[in-house]
Amino acid sequence: MSCLFETHNATLEKALDACTKRYAWSAYPESPSRKFHGDTAASAGKSRFESLLDQDYPLEQPGEIGRTGAEVSPYTRQPLGIRYPKVDVDQLYPAIEKAMPAWRDTSVETRTGVCLEILDRCAQQLFVNAHATMHTAGQSYIMAFAGSGANALDRGLEALSYAYKAMKDIPTTADWQRDFGAAGSAKLNKRYRLMPRGVSVAVCCATFPLWNGYPALTASLATGNPVVMKPHPSAILPVALFVSVCREVLSEAGFDPNLVTLVADTREEPATLPLLKHPHTAIIDFTGSPSFGNWIEENCRNAQVYTETAGCNSVIIESTDDLTAMASAIAHSLCQASAQMCTSVQNIHIPANGILVNGERVSFDAVAQALVAAVESHLSDTKTAAFLCGALVTDDTYDTLARLRDSAQQRGRLLRDSGPYSHPDFPNARTATPLMIEVTQAESDLYREELFGPVSFLIKGDDADNCLEAATRDARECGAITSHVYSSDPEFLDRAEQAYYLAGASVACNLVGMPINFAAAYSDFHVTGLNPAGNACLTDLAFVASRFRIVQSKRLVTD
Amino acid sequence: MSCLFETHNATLEKALDACTKRYAWSAYPESPSRKFHGDTAASAGKSRFESLLDQDYPLEQPGEIGRTGAEVSPYTRQPLGIRYPKVDVDQLYPAIEKAMPAWRDTSVETRTGVCLEILDRCAQQLFVNAHATMHTAGQSYIMAFAGSGANALDRGLEALSYAYKAMKDIPTTADWQRDFGAAGSAKLNKRYRLMPRGVSVAVCCATFPLWNGYPALTASLATGNPVVMKPHPSAILPVALFVSVCREVLSEAGFDPNLVTLVADTREEPATLPLLKHPHTAIIDFTGSPSFGNWIEENCRNAQVYTETAGCNSVIIESTDDLTAMASAIAHSLCQASAQMCTSVQNIHIPANGILVNGERVSFDAVAQALVAAVESHLSDTKTAAFLCGALVTDDTYDTLARLRDSAQQRGRLLRDSGPYSHPDFPNARTATPLMIEVTQAESDLYREELFGPVSFLIKGDDADNCLEAATRDARECGAITSHVYSSDPEFLDRAEQAYYLAGASVACNLVGMPINFAAAYSDFHVTGLNPAGNACLTDLAFVASRFRIVQSKRLVTD
Repeated sequence: MSCLFETHNATLEKALDACTKRYAWSAYPESPSRKFHGDTAASAGKSRFESLLDQDYPLEQPGEIGRTGAEVSPYTRQPLGIRYPKVDVDQLYPAIEKAMPAWRDTSVETRTGVCLEILDRCAQQLFVNAHATMHTAGQSYIMAFAGSGANALDRGLEALSYAYKAMKDIPTTADWQRDFGAAGSAKLNKRYRLMPRGVSVAVCCATFPLWNGYPALTASLATGNPVVMKPHPSAILPVALFVSVCREVLSEAGFDPNLVTLVADTREEPATLPLLKHPHTAIIDFTGSPSFGNWIEENCRNAQVYTETAGCNSVIIESTDDLTAMASAIAHSLCQASAQMCTSVQNIHIPANGILVNGERVSFDAVAQALVAAVESHLSDTKTAAFLCGALVTDDTYDTLARLRDSAQQRGRLLRDSGPYSHPDFPNARTATPLMIEVTQAESDLYREELFGPVSFLIKGDDADNCLEAATRDARECGAITSHVYSSDPEFLDRAEQAYYLAGASVACNLVGMPINFAAAYSDFHVTGLNPAGNACLTDLAFVASRFRIVQSKRLVTD
Repeated sequence: MSCLFETHNATLEKALDACTKRYAWSAYPESPSRKFHGDTAASAGKSRFESLLDQDYPLEQPGEIGRTGAEVSPYTRQPLGIRYPKVDVDQLYPAIEKAMPAWRDTSVETRTGVCLEILDRCAQQLFVNAHATMHTAGQSYIMAFAGSGANALDRGLEALSYAYKAMKDIPTTADWQRDFGAAGSAKLNKRYRLMPRGVSVAVCCATFPLWNGYPALTASLATGNPVVMKPHPSAILPVALFVSVCREVLSEAGFDPNLVTLVADTREEPATLPLLKHPHTAIIDFTGSPSFGNWIEENCRNAQVYTETAGCNSVIIESTDDLTAMASAIAHSLCQASAQMCTSVQNIHIPANGILVNGERVSFDAVAQALVAAVESHLSDTKTAAFLCGALVTDDTYDTLARLRDSAQQRGRLLRDSGPYSHPDFPNARTATPLMIEVTQAESDLYREELFGPVSFLIKGDDADNCLEAATRDARECGAITSHVYSSDPEFLDRAEQAYYLAGASVACNLVGMPINFAAAYSDFHVTGLNPAGNACLTDLAFVASRFRIVQSKRLVTD
């Protein structure tokens, strides 16, 4: 048994238990507090981030044909100036393939141990990762620390646990003996070997570079496949830091670091297609736009494809006992990370004649105003706003906001306009507060797709059941990663659960007093694979079981 | 917990244990002996078969637009005259979909219990199934009884066990509670529901109608999907009998029988494509030709596709301690079921300068002659020949034999000609003994594909390693389901195991004294999915884990 596996075995055992029972647990520190990290860790992380700027990123890989990278900080709007290896894929793949046999042939425990160590080592660089994530993905410091730190690492450990479980389901040997009557009898010794599929490519997204990056890597690497990490051109650094850790741990454990490589690119000169279409690419994990995700599902036939894309996440408001708490919870989702999360709410369905609040009828307009007021409240001081909203990952979002502002004026009602907020630390930060638009279902072409960024719709339905019908139809047809229902009527909740179930979408009911965007590793099955928002779930057995195959040998035993 | 589940729970538990430890076990009777079945079962089964001939098959399904079927017994060459429902798929599917909700919404235990009862009920009709299989697939009585009986049912139980294991991996509920610091705290009750993918189509093959039929059905049905069984036009009856059992058990258990339906057809008027291309078909299990299997893999993008096709199974002879036993074992494979099995050997690689037998060199020609003699020995009396070879499922095989006989004369050497053997019970039986051809590797275009039927090649290699190289290359490039190596040199065996492992093919070493075609449920992972002989394994977690998805709901718990 490998030493790294022993070192981290208790963590793995706990993760396996958490996956089975699905309670709340984290293996990694969520808080940046000096209580946990000491006095110097935070500033050391920041210094390390700063030391990487305007430099060649310290990564040597085969097939380097120059340097690339054009990241711009959403906070300073200045280029990061980090130059990553520009890689010739046709030179890279042979080096990767050279690395495969030793990794393939080692034990499940050794591979799992290396992956556990990688996650642990990443947990030790959460401060630099937080700064790297801020200045690429635009997340706020605290979200970059926790959401892109512990929460994402937990997803990696969760996927690793499933991979381990699926591999350990197969014994390494078996004795088999039977009598065939007149046809004889035999005693066989059988040996079962796990065989990776081949090169695994993980395409990461701009806003949460590692949330799918960690699980894609651990799922594939643990099952024996080398992994090429392909970051989004605007968020390379967090992925590069991760790749560096992987290569360091692999080397220390005596394996070829080329088992994990980075292929960086720029928007102008994209490098994704040659990876996806390479004949030796056997597995693709993709997070990003639905259109590219669908294209991959349709066109990358020779690879196992796992996608998480996006849809139009909705809220249905039927009734509530606490309008303020509910409005605050929903408004939190509209603000958090400037609604650039895959779990951000976009479409809020409200009956035209209002809702019951503690048995008293409250009009549509009053509910709408409560939501607007709750957003204002979250934004009331710039420090909180900055903490909650972070920055926009791309200037394109301003175009979306402008377009939708026009649409609102022509086809609905502008309930709340979007504007920048002043970031207390970064005066040049690319910011935008929520744009909130009232429409009827007749304008559904406006909202039946993901509008990336802080755009939301308050959609008038005939009644609560009509809202439910519209929201679940959108989930089924256009995809949804999260859906919310607020109701104090248990029968309506049951009906809603059933309707979402049939739409192939998961649903959360009456969430207040917590960040409702939160998806919990080991507990929430993230993405159902049944609606257009992705074909795979993070994480279940199906996410890992096909990443390897079984080859067996059997030998006659003669006594 | 359902009553059927309780009834069969011990069987399921034992199957789960067998899958985990992979020892020899069977849940069903392999022997037709009256010791086990009493005096009347055999004749009752035969009578039941005879009573079905020249009749409308007793099956009523929605969408019937006439009757179809053109089966001809390979033993009597007479039409069976059984008329099956001819089905309009567009009328059938709505009826199937009407049946889905109750099945989807019932418990894992209820669905598993129904599947266990189906298998058990099938085990009670093994005699009629044996006659049905003989007179469609051409199997001998004993193979039709055991190979298409217990051995196939065991595969069904194995797949069911994996499906059960994968589903039970997910709890039905969980309590989740955590503190978000300043952002609040929450207690959630979560509920996880398993959601089937949709209609599952199982395309069965002509020679072993239910060997994949049982596992495809149990894997899909247990996970909540209705199943359309699509038999090969020449082997409908065994599948129809199975469908009848499924419908009977489903009805008795209070479910809609349309959860399992039959779509029969004829060669002239095939019905497979409308099923495969139906937009509501979500899962396809296919057994049959590599070309159709590949077409499905490429073109049925919206369904989960599981294929088992064929390749060119090989033997490498490096050395042996017992030439007679080895030759007998290989010859058995050349004869058994007229080499129409997916595990039948086709390509026998022998070094040009012969092999060592107990340390003594034996020439290529002498080895070849030993193989020919062993075939003759297996055919020496017509009763044994009939028992072993059965009949040809199609007249087309005579064309293959004629074509290869010509090729042999032009490009190699005819070591043994094929001819009919006289069946003791069926004078009109469509029979053929093994055609054995000596060639060099220069003629590889002849043998680098499955030649369906009793055709084999004795292929001269430069030396044993050259034989190994050729055989593993063929396995990797053209597919293989079984591969054999005979060697008394442990180093060569190690090398061979490694080479097959790298070719993505399983290998059996030195099998003698048993039917080497035998693939054991609960122990042998059948098909690796890594070479062109199929993309799926019967049975592993990957075979079942994607047949369902998980949808969750979570509700805030207020104390």
